[in-house]
Amino acid sequence: MPTYKLIYFPVKALAEPIRFLLSYMEQDFEDYRFEREQWPEIKPKMPFGKVPVLEVDGKQLHQSAAICRYLAKQCGLNGKDAWEDLQIDIAFETFNDFRAAVSSYHYDHHEESKKLKWEPLSKETIPYYQANFEELAKNNGGYLANGKLSWADIYFVACLDYMNVMAKQDLVENTPTLKKLRDEVLAIPTIKKWVEKRPQSEV
Amino acid sequence: MPTYKLIYFPVKALAEPIRFLLSYMEQDFEDYRFEREQWPEIKPKMPFGKVPVLEVDGKQLHQSAAICRYLAKQCGLNGKDAWEDLQIDIAFETFNDFRAAVSSYHYDHHEESKKLKWEPLSKETIPYYQANFEELAKNNGGYLANGKLSWADIYFVACLDYMNVMAKQDLVENTPTLKKLRDEVLAIPTIKKWVEKRPQSEV
Repeated sequence: MPTYKLIYFPVKALAEPIRFLLSYMEQDFEDYRFEREQWPEIKPKMPFGKVPVLEVDGKQLHQSAAICRYLAKQCGLNGKDAWEDLQIDIAFETFNDFRAAVSSYHYDHHEESKKLKWEPLSKETIPYYQANFEELAKNNGGYLANGKLSWADIYFVACLDYMNVMAKQDLVENTPTLKKLRDEVLAIPTIKKWVEKRPQSEV
Repeated sequence: MPTYKLIYFPVKALAEPIRFLLSYMEQDFEDYRFEREQWPEIKPKMPFGKVPVLEVDGKQLHQSAAICRYLAKQCGLNGKDAWEDLQIDIAFETFNDFRAAVSSYHYDHHEESKKLKWEPLSKETIPYYQANFEELAKNNGGYLANGKLSWADIYFVACLDYMNVMAKQDLVENTPTLKKLRDEVLAIPTIKKWVEKRPQSEV
């Protein structure tokens, strides 16, 4: 049995989809959370200076999407063939674009530039993605792809708290199909157990 | 035989990795390039309002990375197992982070904000990625993963012209292993043929 150690800041954000998948797989892992002030010392030891990093038997894996796709193959949350995998990847990458748009606002260090981004983001980009993801889920039996649960759904739900803080709203409040998807993922017993026991953090 | 139609602006940018892969596969495709002024009319017909879109027998596929990973499986440019696929995905996602950093400068519409980004980008971020990608390629027999050609290499090389314009420099000029990788990919006969016949554009 390989040993897993997940290295990240003391937040959910981009590590949470990995924590959700490891929980779903009922795979024990060390949830190593370092404090912000340790980052300068840790950063040079991380591949390309980034986290989350998942150490599998000491071997460092990075990039949350790559790690999630890999874990998904071990627990049947990938597609049954290349076409289904493609649909999952399309849904994930589209969510990633949405996250990038919201992040571009949230992490903008230039006060005036940031201010100018809020109106198009809140009035156009966010409602556009909400409506189109709702439609996508409606057309896929309540999931983001292939009419069944996949790692794209897990990634989406695990990132929602983080996304909601950045977007300053509950993004699924008015999209009943997406809201139901969130509730369904959070009700999976292994994930429910993880959410109950995880350390509390806003993002 | 399915028919392929690729829909994009009249540039290389994010469509070029798909064009490279279709060429590598010796797959005929319609290279549909629309003009900027047609975009408002085309945008509502594209999934999530974005391009490139690859139509396969009329079915719209979007998201360049998802499409490339799918095509790669058809021509052996994926990994031989889940672990190799993971290494390819890690390399691709890391390159994508690099692209996001350069794009964040290039597409910044706020003059002062953009100006402030140039020094950290050119003095820290770009040299950091160059050095680490060079190291990665050195450790992988001249490729980005697994000691052999994969779709991550194709994506990287196909995006280089676009990246170089955004970064205002030849990004592989001083990284001999990456430069050799670029030259090797561009020397693959099917890709060479495509590059010779493709419409000219800066990015």
